[in-house]
Amino acid sequence: MHTYTLTSMTLRPPTIASPRVAIAGATGYAGQELLRLLAGHPAIRVAAAMSSSAEARRVPALARIWDDEIQPLDTARLADADIVCLALPEHASAALGPQLARAGSRVVDLSGAFRLRDDDSRAMWYPDTPALPEGTVYGLTELHRDAIASAAFVSNPGCYPTAAILALAPLAAAGLLDGDVIIDAKSGVSGAGKKPSERTHFSEVHGSLSAYGVFNHRHAAEMEQGIGRSVTFVPHLVPLNRGILETIYVRLVPGAGSADVAGVLGAAYADAPFIRLRGDDLPDIKQVAYTNFCDIGWRVDATTGRTVLVSCLDNLLKGAAGQAVQNLNLMCGLDERAGLWR
Amino acid sequence: MHTYTLTSMTLRPPTIASPRVAIAGATGYAGQELLRLLAGHPAIRVAAAMSSSAEARRVPALARIWDDEIQPLDTARLADADIVCLALPEHASAALGPQLARAGSRVVDLSGAFRLRDDDSRAMWYPDTPALPEGTVYGLTELHRDAIASAAFVSNPGCYPTAAILALAPLAAAGLLDGDVIIDAKSGVSGAGKKPSERTHFSEVHGSLSAYGVFNHRHAAEMEQGIGRSVTFVPHLVPLNRGILETIYVRLVPGAGSADVAGVLGAAYADAPFIRLRGDDLPDIKQVAYTNFCDIGWRVDATTGRTVLVSCLDNLLKGAAGQAVQNLNLMCGLDERAGLWR
Amino acid sequence: MHTYTLTSMTLRPPTIASPRVAIAGATGYAGQELLRLLAGHPAIRVAAAMSSSAEARRVPALARIWDDEIQPLDTARLADADIVCLALPEHASAALGPQLARAGSRVVDLSGAFRLRDDDSRAMWYPDTPALPEGTVYGLTELHRDAIASAAFVSNPGCYPTAAILALAPLAAAGLLDGDVIIDAKSGVSGAGKKPSERTHFSEVHGSLSAYGVFNHRHAAEMEQGIGRSVTFVPHLVPLNRGILETIYVRLVPGAGSADVAGVLGAAYADAPFIRLRGDDLPDIKQVAYTNFCDIGWRVDATTGRTVLVSCLDNLLKGAAGQAVQNLNLMCGLDERAGLWR
Amino acid sequence: MHTYTLTSMTLRPPTIASPRVAIAGATGYAGQELLRLLAGHPAIRVAAAMSSSAEARRVPALARIWDDEIQPLDTARLADADIVCLALPEHASAALGPQLARAGSRVVDLSGAFRLRDDDSRAMWYPDTPALPEGTVYGLTELHRDAIASAAFVSNPGCYPTAAILALAPLAAAGLLDGDVIIDAKSGVSGAGKKPSERTHFSEVHGSLSAYGVFNHRHAAEMEQGIGRSVTFVPHLVPLNRGILETIYVRLVPGAGSADVAGVLGAAYADAPFIRLRGDDLPDIKQVAYTNFCDIGWRVDATTGRTVLVSCLDNLLKGAAGQAVQNLNLMCGLDERAGLWR
Repeated sequence: MHTYTLTSMTLRPPTIASPRVAIAGATGYAGQELLRLLAGHPAIRVAAAMSSSAEARRVPALARIWDDEIQPLDTARLADADIVCLALPEHASAALGPQLARAGSRVVDLSGAFRLRDDDSRAMWYPDTPALPEGTVYGLTELHRDAIASAAFVSNPGCYPTAAILALAPLAAAGLLDGDVIIDAKSGVSGAGKKPSERTHFSEVHGSLSAYGVFNHRHAAEMEQGIGRSVTFVPHLVPLNRGILETIYVRLVPGAGSADVAGVLGAAYADAPFIRLRGDDLPDIKQVAYTNFCDIGWRVDATTGRTVLVSCLDNLLKGAAGQAVQNLNLMCGLDERAGLWR
Repeated sequence: MHTYTLTSMTLRPPTIASPRVAIAGATGYAGQELLRLLAGHPAIRVAAAMSSSAEARRVPALARIWDDEIQPLDTARLADADIVCLALPEHASAALGPQLARAGSRVVDLSGAFRLRDDDSRAMWYPDTPALPEGTVYGLTELHRDAIASAAFVSNPGCYPTAAILALAPLAAAGLLDGDVIIDAKSGVSGAGKKPSERTHFSEVHGSLSAYGVFNHRHAAEMEQGIGRSVTFVPHLVPLNRGILETIYVRLVPGAGSADVAGVLGAAYADAPFIRLRGDDLPDIKQVAYTNFCDIGWRVDATTGRTVLVSCLDNLLKGAAGQAVQNLNLMCGLDERAGLWR
Repeated sequence: MHTYTLTSMTLRPPTIASPRVAIAGATGYAGQELLRLLAGHPAIRVAAAMSSSAEARRVPALARIWDDEIQPLDTARLADADIVCLALPEHASAALGPQLARAGSRVVDLSGAFRLRDDDSRAMWYPDTPALPEGTVYGLTELHRDAIASAAFVSNPGCYPTAAILALAPLAAAGLLDGDVIIDAKSGVSGAGKKPSERTHFSEVHGSLSAYGVFNHRHAAEMEQGIGRSVTFVPHLVPLNRGILETIYVRLVPGAGSADVAGVLGAAYADAPFIRLRGDDLPDIKQVAYTNFCDIGWRVDATTGRTVLVSCLDNLLKGAAGQAVQNLNLMCGLDERAGLWR
Repeated sequence: MHTYTLTSMTLRPPTIASPRVAIAGATGYAGQELLRLLAGHPAIRVAAAMSSSAEARRVPALARIWDDEIQPLDTARLADADIVCLALPEHASAALGPQLARAGSRVVDLSGAFRLRDDDSRAMWYPDTPALPEGTVYGLTELHRDAIASAAFVSNPGCYPTAAILALAPLAAAGLLDGDVIIDAKSGVSGAGKKPSERTHFSEVHGSLSAYGVFNHRHAAEMEQGIGRSVTFVPHLVPLNRGILETIYVRLVPGAGSADVAGVLGAAYADAPFIRLRGDDLPDIKQVAYTNFCDIGWRVDATTGRTVLVSCLDNLLKGAAGQAVQNLNLMCGLDERAGLWR
């Protein structure tokens, strides 16, 4: 197990000499987290940090970490970096991403704009998005490492789908799943973004808990694409800031049991430093918050065949900026753990 | 709709003249809430408030509401009341309840000790419990009003089962349900009781969220008894104090839809002042916390037939002490709303 | 002590037959709480509930409590009630209050517009406010009961000043205070109002705590008016929804001690049902949240003469709507406890 | 300002070749944080991680970070390390610390046992502590860097005193302070330690806030020792997990103003990478949680001379384990920032 200990890593030189990465959208929750990670990265340098605000300004919370001003968006300067990360609203990414791709930039897009490969589905959920840039790769690191390493355009997965697909895709591929898949997800409020609204007002969330987007959330389509099965997905807003926990209800095919789940997931993630398989010791959010880990546990009821998996992660790290850094590392020929300590 | 407005009630005289109720276990979370409610009740008087602690003591939070000391348990004085409420740990209720019943007291027991009618199931989940006292009634007010009114021994339902059974029992009885029933429940920490433990330590719960008791929670048996179908039940501890929200996943029989759910639940609760049917405006905990309401909403996916119900309540009120007061009201011939304003 | 037990009250008939009260601003946090209290009040009837929104709409959280629609503002209908409560923004109250007063309505204004008697101070902090309506009374119930009972226009106190003045005004009047008064206040987020902003975003408040308005908060002027001494006041926003706790640092005059504080406050509040003096058992927010109590405790360091008082209340009840109901009760000749159970 | 950017550091070789540090008490909140930091430290190696529990066991939350079992205490193995960190209860440190010192180990003690130099004061607050080991240094890094670098025994400061002394000691030394010093502190619950109690039960803390230890907290003596002035100190428990914010009320000597505060603190911390002076932009807990920073802001009321300082930090990092790592770095001849990124 020690092979993947985060702290034992010795960094090999990147395939790109001194890689320089630019960030567009560095003041939102995910963008700020990305800037924080890259500012402390041992091999990657931040070429530019920009936001869609018209005025340059400092971020007090990042003093001593990133003291430069966040600059207004400047496409030419962005294109000057080796890789550009977009942490913008969908419609902005939908416009800027293809433009940068045409100009020859490698891009990691954190929005949802380029996640759905099926044209009809994408037209329904992301109507602002044009055709996918040539060679777009879905950036779920653990499942698409090689394609990401050489990709020109990486579409970073959504927070909910990352937790769901990591738990379910190997089981589906192994033919272990039978019948309906139900995903009951609980998310902290930072997942709803920085824009103030009645829904994110402290007094509405504190001491409360609510379901939303029932039968109508675009992450369901992304999950179905990643798992290859139809899912029922109900997200809930819970009174905490960072973290997602998904309780997943499935049935195993007759004859399969807990050991099969362990075997399939163990094989799938034997080389994955950020996936911690917990078996019947079900994980909780506290253990993954402020880390890049995705923890997965499961219980199988031997008499009924019903199975519950619990998958959890930090929505701003493994669910957004942390996974983006994993992908940047691969794109630069670095160990995927670089800069993701803690 | 105004018929059931809480505030329009005119109190009729009780069938028992000046009913006197005693509480055993008045310092736990549910017991304290019960004392608070009865201290302000317009028709019922508190005959005695006792706890299993050896020393008499005041509760500062109840100053001006209940200024007397909470007394050590005294079975003779308890038996002197018209009705005795037990808010004790299961094993204590299991011993005291039948003793009081034999002595001729009417009892409302808030523990789980007497909830399961099936002997094998009860022996498994509540091994301390002897045979049920003669005429024990399951005290889910809305479903068993008449039996409760004349009952000698009422077993007050569990918090999780109250929310689940209120949403599902009428649908099951109407033959609308098809296939598995999955209940994903989220509960505030007061439901775990007052005893300090690592699990209820603030630092373990704040900013976290965890599943527990998977395939191994005794409330599942109580739900199955109430609904008449097998259920998969996964409770979660969430970082709030009061309230339960259950997200329930079912399928309707072919041809049934949202209107059928509305029709069946509407008919079942036409006379129920504390059930608020919300239709597709899904309820949240904030709207029921510190009230005796159970709010129920639902969404049916017309294309797949999958159905999601959301049922929520305050675990200390409708899930415990509030429902006990509803039952006491019925047992005294009072309007079930008496003393439950706000 | 039982004299003031809330639950022992027998309601005497009001001096106004069947008093009818109208609310302007019934959808904000304080206004909604006021509507909830009055809807369940045993003697007062709600004549109208209005808001500044252009469209009539129901409040789901008040179903079964107030099922009528909240109506758009209609000054003529307001004036038709026996008493009008204004729970509006300052500038709206500043305009509407005097207009209603001239039309002969009795008014309870929950905004700050009419709290400061000194013209210069009021011009500085509430520039929209014209001259005070004739006979305006500052509605701190416990200190001005008689004046409130016969008042035509009551200016309901601010939440922070209520907690501070209740603790300090009797001590100041008795000549017990010496030197600076420092008030370090901690408030839940509902005190910041319902309007979404970066400051009230859940992710900014959860897990955080911040001072604001240092040397620049208009409640300091209101406190100084009520206490008659200069104060240093620093409010903080803390991650909870309802409640204020103020830690007050003073010195007693030489020779005075804890018994003098107890004596003065005990005499001042001997007949006050909602003031609970706690002595050296310092109160906390949990004990007053969702109640109309103000709890006050204190500690005196005998060697240094330094004194710490802790005063706390629920900002929406004793700090706003609850105190308004106390005042309405007095204005109608009712017991001030009416409708404030729990 | 970039000089002290955390991310620009190039690590010089330690003066001790490959320093090895042992931790006693690695399962408490501070000890676990220390283990996490040292496991990822670029130059220090963890020689042993032990706890007072009798059985060896893994910490699931540290999987992939520290996969070895935490061992039962073994004094001989502890003494084998270059430096021993004690994160034990006071009485255990009081016994073990001098024993290790006599055996020639260098020690960093995170408990309070050795913080007070005055024998009478120490006898009062830490009665279990014998005489201070020869050469004991108070480990407030920014104020005692040189002494710490060569110390045999470092007593790591308390969380509350760290925030207070960092803000006040330079001002006191410069003769800027006049009159009383009042420190109103608000702390997250992790500061109360891991042991479950009624006081740390989620349901008691959530939605509440309370003062404790008034005129009776041993950190007041530690503050007075560090500042050289008498202080009034009132700590409060607030419903968050990590972080302390202290609101400090002082008067400046006549003629002094905000610029003097800025000048004195600016000079004191010109070379301090973890002190961020914020001027009149008062800091909040969110900006320091999960970091080793102490942020300090201030406001001076020019007309009255009253001054408010706000000092905040993460109680488990700069207030405990993070500061211990700063001290370990100095003791090993490393840059004090090593291993404290983020």
